[in-house]
Amino acid sequence: MHPEADTFYVGEGPDYQLTIDKVLAHALYMAPDQPIYYKDRMVYTYRGLRERVERLAAALSALGVRGASGRYAMGDRVATLDWNTHWHYEAYLAVPMMGAVLHTINVRLAPVEITYVINHAQDKVLIVHQDFLPLVEKLAPELKTVEKIIVLREGEGPELPSKLAGKEVYDYEALLRDYGGGGFKFEELDENTVAAMCYTSGTTGLPKGTYHTHRQIVLHALAVLAHVAAFMPPELRLDYTATFMHIVPMFHVYSWGLPYIATLLGVKQVYPGRFDAGYYLKLLAEHRVTHTAGVPTILYMLLTHPDFPRYRDRIRGLVFFVGGSALPRGLAKLAWENGIRAVVGYGMTETAPVLTLATVRRDLLDLPEEARWELIAQRTGLPVPLVQLRVVDERMNDVPRDGRTMGEIVVRAPWITREYYKDPEKTASAWRGGWFHTGDIAVWDERGYVTIMDRDKDVIKSGGEWISSLRLEDLISQHPAVGEVAVIGVRHPKWGERPIALVVPKPGYEGRLRPEDIIEHLRRFVEQGVIPKWWLPDRVLIVSELPKTSVGKVNKRALRERYADLLERE
Amino acid sequence: MHPEADTFYVGEGPDYQLTIDKVLAHALYMAPDQPIYYKDRMVYTYRGLRERVERLAAALSALGVRGASGRYAMGDRVATLDWNTHWHYEAYLAVPMMGAVLHTINVRLAPVEITYVINHAQDKVLIVHQDFLPLVEKLAPELKTVEKIIVLREGEGPELPSKLAGKEVYDYEALLRDYGGGGFKFEELDENTVAAMCYTSGTTGLPKGTYHTHRQIVLHALAVLAHVAAFMPPELRLDYTATFMHIVPMFHVYSWGLPYIATLLGVKQVYPGRFDAGYYLKLLAEHRVTHTAGVPTILYMLLTHPDFPRYRDRIRGLVFFVGGSALPRGLAKLAWENGIRAVVGYGMTETAPVLTLATVRRDLLDLPEEARWELIAQRTGLPVPLVQLRVVDERMNDVPRDGRTMGEIVVRAPWITREYYKDPEKTASAWRGGWFHTGDIAVWDERGYVTIMDRDKDVIKSGGEWISSLRLEDLISQHPAVGEVAVIGVRHPKWGERPIALVVPKPGYEGRLRPEDIIEHLRRFVEQGVIPKWWLPDRVLIVSELPKTSVGKVNKRALRERYADLLERE
Repeated sequence: MHPEADTFYVGEGPDYQLTIDKVLAHALYMAPDQPIYYKDRMVYTYRGLRERVERLAAALSALGVRGASGRYAMGDRVATLDWNTHWHYEAYLAVPMMGAVLHTINVRLAPVEITYVINHAQDKVLIVHQDFLPLVEKLAPELKTVEKIIVLREGEGPELPSKLAGKEVYDYEALLRDYGGGGFKFEELDENTVAAMCYTSGTTGLPKGTYHTHRQIVLHALAVLAHVAAFMPPELRLDYTATFMHIVPMFHVYSWGLPYIATLLGVKQVYPGRFDAGYYLKLLAEHRVTHTAGVPTILYMLLTHPDFPRYRDRIRGLVFFVGGSALPRGLAKLAWENGIRAVVGYGMTETAPVLTLATVRRDLLDLPEEARWELIAQRTGLPVPLVQLRVVDERMNDVPRDGRTMGEIVVRAPWITREYYKDPEKTASAWRGGWFHTGDIAVWDERGYVTIMDRDKDVIKSGGEWISSLRLEDLISQHPAVGEVAVIGVRHPKWGERPIALVVPKPGYEGRLRPEDIIEHLRRFVEQGVIPKWWLPDRVLIVSELPKTSVGKVNKRALRERYADLLERE
Repeated sequence: MHPEADTFYVGEGPDYQLTIDKVLAHALYMAPDQPIYYKDRMVYTYRGLRERVERLAAALSALGVRGASGRYAMGDRVATLDWNTHWHYEAYLAVPMMGAVLHTINVRLAPVEITYVINHAQDKVLIVHQDFLPLVEKLAPELKTVEKIIVLREGEGPELPSKLAGKEVYDYEALLRDYGGGGFKFEELDENTVAAMCYTSGTTGLPKGTYHTHRQIVLHALAVLAHVAAFMPPELRLDYTATFMHIVPMFHVYSWGLPYIATLLGVKQVYPGRFDAGYYLKLLAEHRVTHTAGVPTILYMLLTHPDFPRYRDRIRGLVFFVGGSALPRGLAKLAWENGIRAVVGYGMTETAPVLTLATVRRDLLDLPEEARWELIAQRTGLPVPLVQLRVVDERMNDVPRDGRTMGEIVVRAPWITREYYKDPEKTASAWRGGWFHTGDIAVWDERGYVTIMDRDKDVIKSGGEWISSLRLEDLISQHPAVGEVAVIGVRHPKWGERPIALVVPKPGYEGRLRPEDIIEHLRRFVEQGVIPKWWLPDRVLIVSELPKTSVGKVNKRALRERYADLLERE
């Protein structure tokens, strides 16, 4: 019926590419007028976001950023040093959509590590929040590939130099205003083009680079969304009526993919800026946030903040997806008693990150409240759609699904990094046998629920048997006077390794908690058959704080070094 | 940490393939013990299903069926002539999972068309319900590529011949028993391997072949699931607590993908056998079905069945996804008044099929009940995730989003057939301009809602302007005495074409409905400005029935032929 003048013929339908622009396109179909907030200020709707994304792409293009398209093709790298801001969100979309690679830098890394990852990734442009400008000034001479620095300024912000160590410096908003006017024509990209990269901040050695393609990020968003919407009991479900606040730092594994998931859903989003427990509580209450996510430490800081009681009623019912490290039972209880629904997930940087998410299986929905809570807050959950997960022994055979036998979690999923960037040796080791080795030690039960017992490197090997440091921490955390706890293995002349526990008392219990209290507390679990007697720590030390890694996890490596010879000294 | 004896090194992670086995795998993670029913009988759980699927694959393999793997590779074709049975479901999974191609044959096609599609697809094996054995006996000599015929027998079933026109004949259950014991090792397939094919049963010319890959079917399942779970108001939402009964014939476009979606969800499923309105009502009530889907005609037959009042209370709340043709307003009202939640969707065979599904956009959830109902039951909905949809004029420019200007729907989606099988000309025409041309005429409004106005070929061109036959049918259907209605364009000496209406009275109104009643009824809409005066049909004919196509749609082509010269005769 159509005149063919303006059209061309193709012999077959074009292959559809799973690219990030389709995620944003869906928000524009479903919710073009939904608002997006930075702190307490509405910055724009999705329609406005789209325009900002075009402007940013046009500006970056004017600065010489070039995209690429193809199987594992990498365009120019654009790195960010930023908090959870709407600017960061704009980069999450614009940079990959133009075929460039978004590199989110963990601002908690040591300066020398930041220099390392920028040079290793060969970043061309840095987008820097004004808070990190002093740092970047110091590092600038060492940054070999960086050509331009774009600064995000709050309000008036600081005066900007025109150059830093020969690199041109721009103001972000001026750039969008001056270069963004003409818009930007996004080309259709190959879905296997690299979209983003993220370095793991392990506790050993230099950060390892991982990267993910458009296809991986889109499939991750779609599958995780299917899980949280279709496989969750009603009170936990995340759907298009949600209001989402981004607490997971946007420099941690793509903020767990949640900016993309929230965009696909077209929900109201809140980007709350730099972490500040009191201010975050205020935002959660005032925006009537329904869902958020973060590490256990952040949940703990929110719940124990002096302002918490003031906001409790307005926050009640909040669903808090917990990941990054295990949720101690004591903290899980504290959350639920205060009306915060802590839901556990599991994943890692290499896996973009979600592999499993807690839920109550349909056939278990009739369980009593307490048993359901166990599944949500204490198990590591079930695989999200498309994830294939096994718990295996050293010969790659599945361990029995008995809830007791420990093995390593190996996985296949559409969103696992294809390699460690420029590190074929680590890559080959991680992918041996055709499955990705997580290095996490777990048990699974006959219902398929997986429970992480330890990181491979944290498990304690005593007399040839394994002791789960996480399990012991979990039990110790249930003592009412315990704030934080870490259990580590240290050298022992007879057993090879034995566990010791380091305990930080809750506020108000300083000086009143004794090591004997902890041992006595654990003995009750021994009597109930929860743990064997030989798991009891050889020593409990009451300390005032625990060292943390750049992502807020307890730095067990540092603890192991400090206490390595504790039991030999005697 | 692992000894490397049993493992091999790879230089990078294996690409993950989006294949149908992952859909079944998810059911096994989430709901291994959920039951699946054939009629009123539980046939197995998902765990049992997995074993049946292995047996079927082993048996087909023993009969010489060979799979393929690769970009658009086609394994041997296995065709089905079957109702909605658990056997059909087994073939939906086993055939693609072994790399062969499932070809579901529309049993309502004329025998000559069935022969045509079997020969055109080069089917190697037929799986035939006993009800179609007489038909297959007749056609057998004409079926050039078929080597084996497998018969599905209900209970004792008929005696089977050992051969039919030289083709070996097997009993399905005996085959699974005798050859299925050893299980089957499914190989990892390329996701772009062809999984299934389906011929369109258009009203003009020979059926056209379409096919879809594993990737297309998996992405369709995941995206449609995301829509029905995450983008629906609570009362319509489909999630893992649902009970799904398959009313869409399994020989229609993969039963709209619903067997795959239900499997991914791991829900209780009911396969109800051959259509029988009274028996289907009984099953809906007894299984407490929450969700189903079908064409408007089936919905009408269920609602007007003499047994309906008996089951009404137990069926109340049922969500009924309606597709295949437009839902007339009168029928939509009848459904809602009886507690059946009719939700409109839109798609076609070529698109696997879902493109849009009704919902209430989040920002419209506060609308009054009546307005919400309009969006759910009368608009064609919004695109499901990943679908890109436009309504365009003849030069491929978007028509205004004013709810009035008609244009053609063109789409891109991950699940559109790459080509019409062995028909490069039709393929090139459908894909001109890089977008798939649906041939459906629609309007869209400023909120993005799409409303189908007509099939391209059904639209009435009067004096150079378009008249929507669907719109007129919709209005006429609201007359209380109207059962069914069809509006077609017929030749007119002055205007080129003019509309005429054919009306079947509701039971009880036969002989009491006059053409003038319909015209008078329509005049009120003219007075209200709902339609222009020149849209009034030139003639209304009261008839006792309307001819139907093989998929239960009104056969407008037949009507146009019969009444072609009606207005010229005068």
